[in-house]
Amino acid sequence: MPTEVAAGIETVLKDIKKTIAELVSHRGIMLNDLGAVGIGVAGSVDMEAGLVRLAPNLSWRNIPLGAKMETLLGLPVVVDNDAHAAALAEKWQGAGRQFDSLLMVTLGTGIGSALIIDGKIHRGFWGYGAELGHAKVAFEGPLCSCGSRGCLETFASAAAVVRTFRDCLAAGRRSVLQNSSFIDARLIVKAAAQGDELACQVLDQASRYLGLALANAVILTGPEAVIVGGGLAGAGEIILDPLEKYMDACLGPWQIKPLPVLTAQLGNDAGFIGAAYLASRIQVLAGEK
Amino acid sequence: MPTEVAAGIETVLKDIKKTIAELVSHRGIMLNDLGAVGIGVAGSVDMEAGLVRLAPNLSWRNIPLGAKMETLLGLPVVVDNDAHAAALAEKWQGAGRQFDSLLMVTLGTGIGSALIIDGKIHRGFWGYGAELGHAKVAFEGPLCSCGSRGCLETFASAAAVVRTFRDCLAAGRRSVLQNSSFIDARLIVKAAAQGDELACQVLDQASRYLGLALANAVILTGPEAVIVGGGLAGAGEIILDPLEKYMDACLGPWQIKPLPVLTAQLGNDAGFIGAAYLASRIQVLAGEK
Repeated sequence: MPTEVAAGIETVLKDIKKTIAELVSHRGIMLNDLGAVGIGVAGSVDMEAGLVRLAPNLSWRNIPLGAKMETLLGLPVVVDNDAHAAALAEKWQGAGRQFDSLLMVTLGTGIGSALIIDGKIHRGFWGYGAELGHAKVAFEGPLCSCGSRGCLETFASAAAVVRTFRDCLAAGRRSVLQNSSFIDARLIVKAAAQGDELACQVLDQASRYLGLALANAVILTGPEAVIVGGGLAGAGEIILDPLEKYMDACLGPWQIKPLPVLTAQLGNDAGFIGAAYLASRIQVLAGEK
Repeated sequence: MPTEVAAGIETVLKDIKKTIAELVSHRGIMLNDLGAVGIGVAGSVDMEAGLVRLAPNLSWRNIPLGAKMETLLGLPVVVDNDAHAAALAEKWQGAGRQFDSLLMVTLGTGIGSALIIDGKIHRGFWGYGAELGHAKVAFEGPLCSCGSRGCLETFASAAAVVRTFRDCLAAGRRSVLQNSSFIDARLIVKAAAQGDELACQVLDQASRYLGLALANAVILTGPEAVIVGGGLAGAGEIILDPLEKYMDACLGPWQIKPLPVLTAQLGNDAGFIGAAYLASRIQVLAGEK
């Protein structure tokens, strides 16, 4: 269901509770029958504290989401970043099952990412994980939601692809989409598949920036494989072929060519499945504290 | 002593043995009194196999250095990358003593780097560690020793600073060094400290590329602190001030401002001290296999 950000956080939390109650009742069980609830949030999360530190697209800052939902539900709640949840899901039940170390990148409205080392999310000392979407691929560029410029997210997310495409149309470039009143990433991918020159160019440029950032991430962290998910990954070879070509060129000298670059298998469900995985491990996680 | 690369590897190994024998005799002990020997090599090392996989500046590829030196010395030998050894030394006895996770970068002829997570070198699945010098900071640029273009090393190493400076002189730029027959990084740093405009500009540009690459590495791996070593780090604030400024601008939104950026304390001895640390832990390391 849509997140009613404008209605305020308490409304959003009640909506979440309502959704959970409906799901549970469809299975013929009670809320109290659940052992725990897992939540994946599009933002920077302090998992141990259950705190959403910064979620720009929700306008949330320092929200104790775990404690609030525990009170509302009367159940243990674990909160993590949604890209972390998606990566754990792909490792648990998706494209990453055979790998102990993984870099996952999700190309949606923004760019989410997660680094798994020895089967666990790498959170780093500051707890925000691996934020590949905010790696700088240029000194200048459009303003990013994080407040910086030059972030990968402003060049290679689905939203960035649409913005670049529209800018080119406004500058007089031609395309099969030039008379469309509505343009989204899916339409651009479709146009590229039909040979539209502008659509191909815009997607190729996004792939090039993404390849640069991913190659750098691999050179720094040495994962066994890379998984690409999110809406743009659905574009398939139009995105992935130039991406792999660029990465192989960068990684060749390091004898890690070819590095497996896989498409995510769980689609939009990955976040839910990963949150469920975290909930299923809540007692183990408590023991590790 | 200089490494006589042209004389061949067997000569280099004998020179190493000779040097060790001299050091030992100065202490009034025998070679057999040593428990183990540690070696740091400027190249990509498979530590478990004692194998130097690629050392471009030595023209070595797939050299079983550990086994060869064990035969020559009759002692256990541990081999690691020299930047890894330097980082372990700074963690053990230098600037990194109070931190469990660290990113170290060494600005010399090339750019070495190491990532320490939970007190241990992060080697990644492919075993080469964190090669920040070969992170791409541009799509194009001078050819790097690794075979790629756009690597940080070609913009921000001591050799790159000297090359850029000479290129500017050749293009007609003025500097207090324009009539010098010999120019190295130390002279450029000295000229910058005296206000030479060209020297300041060239060092500022190197800092900017370095800041970009370091900020990206921090965003991806979340170390508690960054340590900068090597010849150029000796330049002090001329390099470190713009570097910190740029990193803080990138990292501000992630609430990790200010990230400690420290100067290495052990200088050129860091590699030796770290290799000694590895040798001292050789039995522990064997147990962890």
